[in-house]
Amino acid sequence: MYIEKINSPADVKKLDINELEVLASEVRSGLMNRLSKKGGHFGPNFGFVEATIALHYVFDSPKDKFVFDVSHQSYTHKMLTGRKDAYLYDEHFGDISGYTNPEESEHDFFNVGHTSTSVSLACGLAKGRDLKGEKGNVIAVIGDGSLSGGEALEGIDFASELESNFIILVNDNDMSIAENHGGLYKNLKALRDSDGKCECNLFKAMGLDYLYVGEGNDIAKLIEAFKKVKDIDHPIAVHVNTVKGKGYKPAETNKEDWHWCMPFDIETGKSRFSFDGEDYSSLTCDFLMKKMKADKRVTTIVAAVPTNIGFTADKRKEAGKQFIDVGIAEEHAVAMASGIAKNGGKPVFATHSSFFQRTYDQISQDLCVNGNPATLLVNTASVYGMNDVTHLGLYDIPMMSNIPGLVYLAPVNCEEYFAMLDWSIEQDKYPVAIRIPCNGVIHTDKPVDTDYSCINKYKITQQGEDIAIIALGDFYQIGEELAKLIAEKTGKAPTLINPRYITGVDEEMLEQLKKNHSKVVTLEDGILCGGFGEKIARFYGADDMKVYNYGLKKEFLDRYSVEEVLKDNHLTPEQIFSDIA
Amino acid sequence: MYIEKINSPADVKKLDINELEVLASEVRSGLMNRLSKKGGHFGPNFGFVEATIALHYVFDSPKDKFVFDVSHQSYTHKMLTGRKDAYLYDEHFGDISGYTNPEESEHDFFNVGHTSTSVSLACGLAKGRDLKGEKGNVIAVIGDGSLSGGEALEGIDFASELESNFIILVNDNDMSIAENHGGLYKNLKALRDSDGKCECNLFKAMGLDYLYVGEGNDIAKLIEAFKKVKDIDHPIAVHVNTVKGKGYKPAETNKEDWHWCMPFDIETGKSRFSFDGEDYSSLTCDFLMKKMKADKRVTTIVAAVPTNIGFTADKRKEAGKQFIDVGIAEEHAVAMASGIAKNGGKPVFATHSSFFQRTYDQISQDLCVNGNPATLLVNTASVYGMNDVTHLGLYDIPMMSNIPGLVYLAPVNCEEYFAMLDWSIEQDKYPVAIRIPCNGVIHTDKPVDTDYSCINKYKITQQGEDIAIIALGDFYQIGEELAKLIAEKTGKAPTLINPRYITGVDEEMLEQLKKNHSKVVTLEDGILCGGFGEKIARFYGADDMKVYNYGLKKEFLDRYSVEEVLKDNHLTPEQIFSDIA
Repeated sequence: MYIEKINSPADVKKLDINELEVLASEVRSGLMNRLSKKGGHFGPNFGFVEATIALHYVFDSPKDKFVFDVSHQSYTHKMLTGRKDAYLYDEHFGDISGYTNPEESEHDFFNVGHTSTSVSLACGLAKGRDLKGEKGNVIAVIGDGSLSGGEALEGIDFASELESNFIILVNDNDMSIAENHGGLYKNLKALRDSDGKCECNLFKAMGLDYLYVGEGNDIAKLIEAFKKVKDIDHPIAVHVNTVKGKGYKPAETNKEDWHWCMPFDIETGKSRFSFDGEDYSSLTCDFLMKKMKADKRVTTIVAAVPTNIGFTADKRKEAGKQFIDVGIAEEHAVAMASGIAKNGGKPVFATHSSFFQRTYDQISQDLCVNGNPATLLVNTASVYGMNDVTHLGLYDIPMMSNIPGLVYLAPVNCEEYFAMLDWSIEQDKYPVAIRIPCNGVIHTDKPVDTDYSCINKYKITQQGEDIAIIALGDFYQIGEELAKLIAEKTGKAPTLINPRYITGVDEEMLEQLKKNHSKVVTLEDGILCGGFGEKIARFYGADDMKVYNYGLKKEFLDRYSVEEVLKDNHLTPEQIFSDIA
Repeated sequence: MYIEKINSPADVKKLDINELEVLASEVRSGLMNRLSKKGGHFGPNFGFVEATIALHYVFDSPKDKFVFDVSHQSYTHKMLTGRKDAYLYDEHFGDISGYTNPEESEHDFFNVGHTSTSVSLACGLAKGRDLKGEKGNVIAVIGDGSLSGGEALEGIDFASELESNFIILVNDNDMSIAENHGGLYKNLKALRDSDGKCECNLFKAMGLDYLYVGEGNDIAKLIEAFKKVKDIDHPIAVHVNTVKGKGYKPAETNKEDWHWCMPFDIETGKSRFSFDGEDYSSLTCDFLMKKMKADKRVTTIVAAVPTNIGFTADKRKEAGKQFIDVGIAEEHAVAMASGIAKNGGKPVFATHSSFFQRTYDQISQDLCVNGNPATLLVNTASVYGMNDVTHLGLYDIPMMSNIPGLVYLAPVNCEEYFAMLDWSIEQDKYPVAIRIPCNGVIHTDKPVDTDYSCINKYKITQQGEDIAIIALGDFYQIGEELAKLIAEKTGKAPTLINPRYITGVDEEMLEQLKKNHSKVVTLEDGILCGGFGEKIARFYGADDMKVYNYGLKKEFLDRYSVEEVLKDNHLTPEQIFSDIA
């Protein structure tokens, strides 16, 4: 096996073309070993094996610097830069993250997990090189799916101003996570169809030089192309046509399902996990589908992650023109939602908490300054959500809840979630965001309110005394447990409150609590800094009420255990009780 | 005068071509009257008079809907839609805002002040129309300077998916506020030079149909072109070449200075205001110039507003390659700054607080997750800053200070500001943001610290008792006044603290304060929700310390009086004293 001897890119350079071809198949075996047992990004990596080998064959990393967009296609790069064991041997699976990571290797320059950032980051490396008067190649690797993101387009537009070595490698596999969206993909197709010769050329229109490589899974052809552009003295886009999922039939056939995989059986391609419980993705899809059928003004918007709310290909087809996938273009999605609402539509835009971070200005300026009644569904906004440092859903409360004009709601169970969503779609007064619950589908048999137009009105779910627990969203259940524990330990039942509204304080209720309560405990599923509990602390700042805020410390976590994080932040009922007793 | 009889677009349609030409010159007189006395956006409006007249002549607003990008070129639109008096008669100047405003007119659909939003907002109007099965044209008007912004590029890329009527009117005057930057402007030039016939075409590459109008200040030609695209059944870009500042020699000659003007003498073009005091723009420019000359790794980055930190054309030239104007591309600017810092450069990116809103995700993911030592200068972040609803600098503390890993500093005088900036440029550990003071250039003769690496260490500037005032940044001077007032009224001097660090709490000092203080007052120049003071309130939540947080209410203000806002928020020393006494 050649792969066994690859400890750095220098070892790749020792092989001849035939050996490199064998290496490619060994790399795929390594990828298959890890991915079939542990899951991860399948399609992007299987399609980019040859290109990565050719890159390391031609260029000299880390003097030459690669920046991978999203970096979910960097697995082969990791295997060739001293981290092969994490693919070949099960006991080393835990050695690495799923993204580039400077702590792992000098060949990685950034922690990257969001799309569309590589060109700008790499522009910075190139500019830093130029300021210091140094040499070397800087190569941004970006997939076609990421091209539609505003940051990528800003970066590509700026790149031509560098006037020095800069290579943008466009890995075009004609797919985003789902199918691509947007006009520029028509141009990529025209370029592919004309072997790169089509006069109308997005990259040239953005001021770049251009080279096309039609056979992006042919190592010899790739090496030839990369040699042409190595040490080039100006910015160039190298457009490489690859096959997503290349080398594994099920992944080549069903590209969307194989973008990312759970552990699976290699022979059949079937997932080793079957989940037949309820989940909010399909429940949300069903709910929105029903709303769309009942009212043609209702429209569902996603940004390249349609299945985050259950819109698989068949559901998208069923929804027709009332379903919009804007591709990677979250800024556009929020602004367009504002426009749709302004003109009488009822838009619902859903994406992950971490990706809403791209839309702060659009939520503020395009949506809230204008007060248009669009609905934003914030997914995986929770300690129970995604746990890579680049995908954390712990910051949306400080980010979004302090924007004037937004009504941000935190339901505590399934029935309340859909009641809030229904209210939001039907009302015409407020921009509304809703945190989709993330702690499992919890049902209630108690009736839930259907009207949320009395803004910032909290709900007392258990009237008690002395201690009041204000338990927001996903942490409401911790609040319930805490309430029980307090009653058991003290013999006095505390008051339990479901605040529902993240964006404001129920001053009247908080005032009332002063009568027969001496302590208020707040709980929120996110960081404390800038969050919900601090607003309660401010309200009682000059009063005798003792306020205890519980939530997470402001920090970046990475691949954490939920249980440990909760414990570290004193978030178990027992810990809280011992703090406040 | 025709203008006297224009009360709605219907009145424009009654005129013939010759009369429309006269109307154009009357509109310019109206613009001149208001702008020479009150100031405002000069160049964008003078260049777009004919196009606006032609738009209202051909289309039927408000059934046909115009969305103006930035909307600083909408003055003629306002004059033709019932708001002419605000230009013709001094006593009506106050009737209108400087931007489109739905509260003023049914012909305005959005409050817009940030760049690059029009296409996405207009896409929304078009989609809303289609969902309801209605007819009518939707026209996004976007200047070439705004095209480089990520949101605009996302919108243009998406537009082709509409498959129904949609017109993007590109007002190309070959200028941003300063000169244009980025590769796409080379393509606009190629299109202008070829009378729109150049095969390589950015708009076509983004999937759009295309029409070129070379003479964008010729009403007849514009009417002809607009008639061609009226009721078109698919998306099209209409590329119109106009002259910025058209009709006023000084503005045609010096386009950058005349983008926006203070009141001026019409004959000479000279500003009626002369300011010969110190200002932070030129002081910052001088400081950075010196740093850049001493160290070639230092680089200054702006995003289309170079003079916000004093970089006039001559200074930009002097700085050479160490100065980068990325154009409207704030996301790119922050990500690139992270890359530059990663590769050993010392980047400083400056823009307005309101425009940093576009960069939340880049600050979080590209910069802070990676911990690269770039410096961000946050300008006009203050109640004393810009006061249009779309340009407020009141939200950056909740937005930025809760991002993990960022060190956000608030200097209280000129010397501290430059000491912090110097430290930030020279250190290599933290991403640092600094709020440029905005309450006048205040000097101190006391020595200021030069080392800020002991993160979150507050500074006691006056040791006292009972009451501690923690006065952040621009509100430090209010803190000083309050301290004096308390000493006078009570005979006991309070403690005064300059916290310096917005992003953290000096737990040791706050703990110490408990010994001989019973009250803590916090002051911050921004909204309270999610801000600095709430962190102090949380710290003391379960203690006996009384905490009083002062700052602004979470709301959108518009064209406010600072004095009134301060009073409404109980921010005068007298009001605070009466609250806490």
